[in-house]
Amino acid sequence: MSNRIPRILILGAGYGGIITAQKLQKQLNYNEADVTLVSKHEYHYVTTHLHMPAAGTDDPQNAKVNILKLIDEFKIDFVKSTVQQIRPQEKKVILEDGTLSYDYLVIAMGGQPETFGIPGMKENAFFIRSLNAVNMIRAHIEYQFAKYKMEPHRQEYLTFVVGGAGFTGIEFVGELADRIPVLCRRYDVDPKLVKIYNVEAAPTALPGFDPELVQYGVKVLENKGVQFKIGIAVKECHPDHVVLADGEVIKTRTVVWTGGIRGNQMIEDAGFEVMRGRVKVDEHLRVSGNDNVYVIGDNALVFNEENRPYPPTAQIAMQMGINCAHNLVASIRGGQLKPFQPQIKGTVASLGKGSAIGVVGKRKLKGWTAVQMKKIIDNRWLFTIGGISLVLRKGRFFS
Amino acid sequence: MSNRIPRILILGAGYGGIITAQKLQKQLNYNEADVTLVSKHEYHYVTTHLHMPAAGTDDPQNAKVNILKLIDEFKIDFVKSTVQQIRPQEKKVILEDGTLSYDYLVIAMGGQPETFGIPGMKENAFFIRSLNAVNMIRAHIEYQFAKYKMEPHRQEYLTFVVGGAGFTGIEFVGELADRIPVLCRRYDVDPKLVKIYNVEAAPTALPGFDPELVQYGVKVLENKGVQFKIGIAVKECHPDHVVLADGEVIKTRTVVWTGGIRGNQMIEDAGFEVMRGRVKVDEHLRVSGNDNVYVIGDNALVFNEENRPYPPTAQIAMQMGINCAHNLVASIRGGQLKPFQPQIKGTVASLGKGSAIGVVGKRKLKGWTAVQMKKIIDNRWLFTIGGISLVLRKGRFFS
Repeated sequence: MSNRIPRILILGAGYGGIITAQKLQKQLNYNEADVTLVSKHEYHYVTTHLHMPAAGTDDPQNAKVNILKLIDEFKIDFVKSTVQQIRPQEKKVILEDGTLSYDYLVIAMGGQPETFGIPGMKENAFFIRSLNAVNMIRAHIEYQFAKYKMEPHRQEYLTFVVGGAGFTGIEFVGELADRIPVLCRRYDVDPKLVKIYNVEAAPTALPGFDPELVQYGVKVLENKGVQFKIGIAVKECHPDHVVLADGEVIKTRTVVWTGGIRGNQMIEDAGFEVMRGRVKVDEHLRVSGNDNVYVIGDNALVFNEENRPYPPTAQIAMQMGINCAHNLVASIRGGQLKPFQPQIKGTVASLGKGSAIGVVGKRKLKGWTAVQMKKIIDNRWLFTIGGISLVLRKGRFFS
Repeated sequence: MSNRIPRILILGAGYGGIITAQKLQKQLNYNEADVTLVSKHEYHYVTTHLHMPAAGTDDPQNAKVNILKLIDEFKIDFVKSTVQQIRPQEKKVILEDGTLSYDYLVIAMGGQPETFGIPGMKENAFFIRSLNAVNMIRAHIEYQFAKYKMEPHRQEYLTFVVGGAGFTGIEFVGELADRIPVLCRRYDVDPKLVKIYNVEAAPTALPGFDPELVQYGVKVLENKGVQFKIGIAVKECHPDHVVLADGEVIKTRTVVWTGGIRGNQMIEDAGFEVMRGRVKVDEHLRVSGNDNVYVIGDNALVFNEENRPYPPTAQIAMQMGINCAHNLVASIRGGQLKPFQPQIKGTVASLGKGSAIGVVGKRKLKGWTAVQMKKIIDNRWLFTIGGISLVLRKGRFFS
């Protein structure tokens, strides 16, 4: 063993990254490793909350937590910077303003929107992927109402198209439907003129979710004014309209794409083998051939018993972070690595104010019960990373 | 005298129009005249409040009052429509969806922005002229913050140029300066990056106002971060920059033009003789050669003892409305017309939260005292048109 203590570098402070950092901070002695956390922002954001500020139904401040309140700076270095390149051969990471070397690397940077090559989508759509992006969506939506009042012949200002009816898409249209009446009152707009379309190429909304609950959820959202176009792909996205696979043209200035997540481009650029940008990690969450590189969260591809990939969720990212921290400590101390075994405790999708659907264990939940479960899950995450004080500051108690 | 009772048509429900309608409603018996009020909107808006929702420091709802709460529908007909043409020869007014004929006409439609032919100003600038327009300005300003966060190399998103340092310009930059810290917190933007320029071609801000107070006001606003460019005209206005007369180019996506008001184009189109779109009315506020047509408010040109035109203010419009109603009643009853003699009771300009400057009678006011006087004036207007209940609902009590 060398004199120098190993350097652990964690890229990203989302669900996976922040919990890895916290667990290492707790489990390692200060002289066992140098741990550095790199994040583009000085805050962690609660991605599962982003659909609310995006629609404007919640203050964006509630979705962010200062990273320095979550880690102990005496034990963990924090670098606010943007990663530009990962060089596994050199064991180095190039930042926009520097270079960091590592012995162990944890890639927890989160994914990127997958637009499946739909022409114009990348250029013209909005993506719910960061606090800045959701602030943009919120301000943009409100701006359309203001513009409509100045040019009332342009009803397309009041048409909103959401591409994708997976979790993010469904939760976003739920919030958006709740937001519309507020904006209609503020701008004195007839709510009947506002259209929300949710377009999904798969044969069902929330593919993979319990069909009975999906049916219930779709009904709730339809009653709030959402129009679903299921089994229909978006073919083209233009600045002022979208074209659907069935030929329909919808005039709109607002397309929010939630149709997919792929791995971060930098991982492919690093030379790792990827499938849709994600790395098929080994059972210990490491990149094959690079035992010192862990990939967790949206960028890691892990298959379930039916040989289907787990979806990129907060729940899995968090469990991966805990597992990754354990394995890092074991590596450093020469202990036993633990294989990653996800436990899907439950999944709840919000349908906006007052309703949600979910499966927890084998129980199906809907309506008020599901809403309460959603809050418990959200608050549980805050408790995990910030204890009771964070729950009190940012938690959700009232519906 | 014919059997038919005379028809009085009032165009516009601003300060002048609404008070004319109210006074006629009070002074005329129901069988003396048919009175019809035409307005583009179903609400009266308190124009002197508009600078606040424009900057986003006040709820736009506070600047509007439903017209049907201000007039008695049993005595006055209300038509919500847009005037398209005035035909004095035929004694008719063409609406976008109909025609109304009159025996007496009151033109109280308000003015239009005067851009003095500055290239690009009409096309690229915003104007504080209606509730919809100020909602647009507010949403636009917030949108620039959101855009800046997505493209932080574009600092011009955070540069705001206000053309004109008259009353509206000064009050607007005051509110805008108050709004900036709120938006900076919400969007996590360094306030030092935000620039507010107030550009005025005249050799002083608030031309015609007491110089000592102007100096005080400019200082207050400078301390809030406003940069004045006095004695410098705006030469050109482009979508992404303005050019000043001294050659300076300011990159910006937001130009709010408050540099002037001219008469409504429809008045010139009606064949009346105008000076910068305004009609030089006779001492009874009538158009010469058209004894049955009154022009009040922004469209009426009345000169003071020094032979300078009175500025288009709420105060004057209101006094004109009262005078006009008196003269209409006198005409109908064969009584004595009264010449219009404006009484300038006082003028107060807000400098944003906590400060104002004003002259009331011969007294100069500044700071807190002026703020209180401003509120008294605003509340007085609400009291005049809607009694104590309107003051309680929309009045300003807290600073």
